Amino acid sequence: MNTTAYDVTGMTCGHCEGSVRGEVAKIQGITGIEVSAATGRLIVTSDSAVDDAAVLAAVDEAGYSAVRA
Amino acid sequence: MNTTAYDVTGMTCGHCEGSVRGEVAKIQGITGIEVSAATGRLIVTSDSAVDDAAVLAAVDEAGYSAVRA
Repeated sequence: MNTTAYDVTGMTCGHCEGSVRGEVAKIQGITGIEVSAATGRLIVTSDSAVDDAAVLAAVDEAGYSAVRA
Repeated sequence: MNTTAYDVTGMTCGHCEGSVRGEVAKIQGITGIEVSAATGRLIVTSDSAVDDAAVLAAVDEAGYSAVRA
């Protein structure tokens, strides 16, 4: 199992967390998502190596910006 | 036209504004809704007198609390 952490800027509430979760969940191969507006941390788990570009694009699609932590 | 202002506690972002707007919009007779997370202000316009209790209940349903301003 791979675990990858990202720092997301701009989330303020549970709705924001839900938006990020919803977009990241569309990425194939992802088995787990933890996201916290309080810490700005997004943790993605996957069976094989996660596609960083896809995760960053998904966060962008949700309306926020992320960098690999 | 009647205009009634409320102070809403807890909204942090556009998603929050959307949640409040969506619930308040279900109330019969309301013709306009302005809501701002930045100021916490909700302004409701209606043709006849607005039902305060209905507005407060709608905001509560959205997950926030309001008082008449």
